[in-house]
Amino acid sequence: MYQKILVANRGEIAVRILRACREMGIRTVAVCSTADKMALHAQLADECICIGGAKPSESYLKMESILSAAIASGAQAIHPGFGFLSENARFASLCERCGIDFIGPSAQCIADMGDKAEARRKMQQAGIPVIPGTENAMTDADAARRFADEIGYPVIIKASAGGGGKGMRVVEQPEQFEEAFRLAQRETQLAFGDDHMYVEKYLHPVRHIEFQILADRQGNTIHLGERDCSIQRRHQKLVEEAPAVFLSEELREEMGKAAVDAAKAAGYYSAGTVEFLVDSRNHFYFMEMNTRIQVEHPVTEMVTGVDLIKEMIRISAGEKLSYCQSDICVRGHAIECRITAEDAGRGFLPSTGTVTELHIPGGNGVRVDTMLYNGCEILPYYDSMLAKVIVCGRNREEAISKMRSALGELIIEGVTTNRDFQYELTGSDEFAAGDIDAINERLQTEDMRRR
Amino acid sequence: MYQKILVANRGEIAVRILRACREMGIRTVAVCSTADKMALHAQLADECICIGGAKPSESYLKMESILSAAIASGAQAIHPGFGFLSENARFASLCERCGIDFIGPSAQCIADMGDKAEARRKMQQAGIPVIPGTENAMTDADAARRFADEIGYPVIIKASAGGGGKGMRVVEQPEQFEEAFRLAQRETQLAFGDDHMYVEKYLHPVRHIEFQILADRQGNTIHLGERDCSIQRRHQKLVEEAPAVFLSEELREEMGKAAVDAAKAAGYYSAGTVEFLVDSRNHFYFMEMNTRIQVEHPVTEMVTGVDLIKEMIRISAGEKLSYCQSDICVRGHAIECRITAEDAGRGFLPSTGTVTELHIPGGNGVRVDTMLYNGCEILPYYDSMLAKVIVCGRNREEAISKMRSALGELIIEGVTTNRDFQYELTGSDEFAAGDIDAINERLQTEDMRRR
Repeated sequence: MYQKILVANRGEIAVRILRACREMGIRTVAVCSTADKMALHAQLADECICIGGAKPSESYLKMESILSAAIASGAQAIHPGFGFLSENARFASLCERCGIDFIGPSAQCIADMGDKAEARRKMQQAGIPVIPGTENAMTDADAARRFADEIGYPVIIKASAGGGGKGMRVVEQPEQFEEAFRLAQRETQLAFGDDHMYVEKYLHPVRHIEFQILADRQGNTIHLGERDCSIQRRHQKLVEEAPAVFLSEELREEMGKAAVDAAKAAGYYSAGTVEFLVDSRNHFYFMEMNTRIQVEHPVTEMVTGVDLIKEMIRISAGEKLSYCQSDICVRGHAIECRITAEDAGRGFLPSTGTVTELHIPGGNGVRVDTMLYNGCEILPYYDSMLAKVIVCGRNREEAISKMRSALGELIIEGVTTNRDFQYELTGSDEFAAGDIDAINERLQTEDMRRR
Repeated sequence: MYQKILVANRGEIAVRILRACREMGIRTVAVCSTADKMALHAQLADECICIGGAKPSESYLKMESILSAAIASGAQAIHPGFGFLSENARFASLCERCGIDFIGPSAQCIADMGDKAEARRKMQQAGIPVIPGTENAMTDADAARRFADEIGYPVIIKASAGGGGKGMRVVEQPEQFEEAFRLAQRETQLAFGDDHMYVEKYLHPVRHIEFQILADRQGNTIHLGERDCSIQRRHQKLVEEAPAVFLSEELREEMGKAAVDAAKAAGYYSAGTVEFLVDSRNHFYFMEMNTRIQVEHPVTEMVTGVDLIKEMIRISAGEKLSYCQSDICVRGHAIECRITAEDAGRGFLPSTGTVTELHIPGGNGVRVDTMLYNGCEILPYYDSMLAKVIVCGRNREEAISKMRSALGELIIEGVTTNRDFQYELTGSDEFAAGDIDAINERLQTEDMRRR
């Protein structure tokens, strides 16, 4: 096992990983920007190295600085968390060349699954259903339009390099296609420095169901059940649950098997996620594979009792999976609400400030993953997520009431948050009924009204 | 189901109960002393009624004031928590007479089990092994001495009305008996206003194993496995675990069955605990039944996923148990450390003060039940427990490292706590090896050295 790990991230996920290392008796190195010197992750680690300026491009995205920090501190492995360099194949291969383990899948696998066309091909070969869409990424709007006409509207335009909803556009009518393509392309170019796009059939209404995968380097692959991440605003997840109550036991088994097959086809090891779309006839389609730990991983941890971060570390160090498929059983129902520094009343405008009062709920079945502390500063440079409130109840009904109670108790003063929005959402009749379509439609309508 | 519940307690257990009510959609009434107006429980409840002065005898022990508060606020039931009036049969029967449900067992059952001689008789009749000891409580030192001589030394002298280690004395030699008896009797008289004592064979080395019971008013009784509460200082529990790793599956089953039989023999309903002593030959003896929720109940909740407080409320409202014995399965290993405002370096002297800095650990498998908040005051009038750090890992080893990590992260400034003591204890080789005798002996030696 490693003696020392560098965590190449910030915020709550850095705290989450630092804690896992600490529990495993592994020494930790944090990296931070000049703006983050007082951040919780910087304080919790055994060592902290400042790697550059406040902007991500000057620090958390600076591969050379991070690798230098790892070499200088004697870290044997780097955990990238999510976002930043977590799905950057070049970074993974740079780590390899420096003799440092990248805690995640192979650089090749990241590259393959990051290239959405390549991922599609691999999945089709493995016999996994995929959404009708372009085989290869495109830069030419005319060719893309011809393809869209062929598969029929609505279609969705996506960035090949993308993620997190950036560079995505739904097109309902042929005559809207070209403008939408160009806008999406420009956004993609700005965000990822790449303008390759692809076009897919847009399924609607649809459920976003993802399966958590664990695979070791010895070829053992298991899944840990699914998460329902259907509630989204502008392709950003807001609330996640495990299990997905609408899935029948047969469909769950079939999809779980497909997820394991997908991971095997990708040559995957580490923790990862296979995302599916499920249409109203309960047909499922491979959407993408996320080759990293995900924001919403705690809901799976709550219902299965498996520590995904620790498993990632063990797998990276060459250990065999310590669970087999039959060891995994789901107990109860978990829900996660993302608490962001966003003003839901003003179009989810990001907010900043100093936390002047903080009360974090606790107790039975309540977990809050956060980097907040009394007096900490919320900076404008980074993702607006402040905390994840995760609850686990005996069933979905109990989980909802637990979430409402926890959100009701949560106090964050000094910065505007979406707490009230999440409190209302999880208290709505639509949410209680699991009527995700109605919720998403409402979110969309509110967005449109605001524009 | 109740519309409104009054919580007749303070501190973390009041917070715990208030949260359970909130999750069940039940409105809450807190009671507080004049000193506790800013306490977390007072702030979290929907309503709060100040019932008297700072001293427990002027507030939390004042039955009439609590009942008046319940009647005035329209509460249909009272949850007593632990300590204070939780095992007071008179209070339970007063509630009954006022038409308010006492959330716990019947007054008769509390009286029976509180009378240790009566409890012994009931258990003997039910065929449950009991420790050799006096059949009836005694006040006469000579008669007690004759009995002790008969069963052989060492013996333990206990208060009939007692609990929490008050009025207890271990006697190794006949010539020490009389003084010890008189001292214990005086302590008992001061603490409980009663000087009835009984004498038992003192088993040593011994394990304190308690089984959690749930029973409804329809006659269904189940157990939720055991807790190992063997680590004690002056008969006060310090660290509790579930499950007890030294128990064989056969012994566990046998003891679980005995615990269910004991609860049935007592005519028990609500959540309760049957405490056993297990000697070095794995013989077990009924020690006592605790007719209330216990401090250490969260370790059982962590491994079973059952919410004991909610079950107590449901049972009290007349609902049938929603679990049967085969629904209960234990997953992982949980440990609880009690964090007290005590200076372990100075003979566990209680300390008071204002909390000036607070950081509560969190994350995967970590639960902290506490009434602390930034700026809260620790008062001299009440029990010194500030928080319970509870962790659940895949096995005991992981739970220990999780506890160490959580305790390492915990920051409470402004009041001296036993955090460092617990950190050392859970990090010791003896604790890792489960060598409870060595730990208890060390604790005892340190105490003696100090005197």
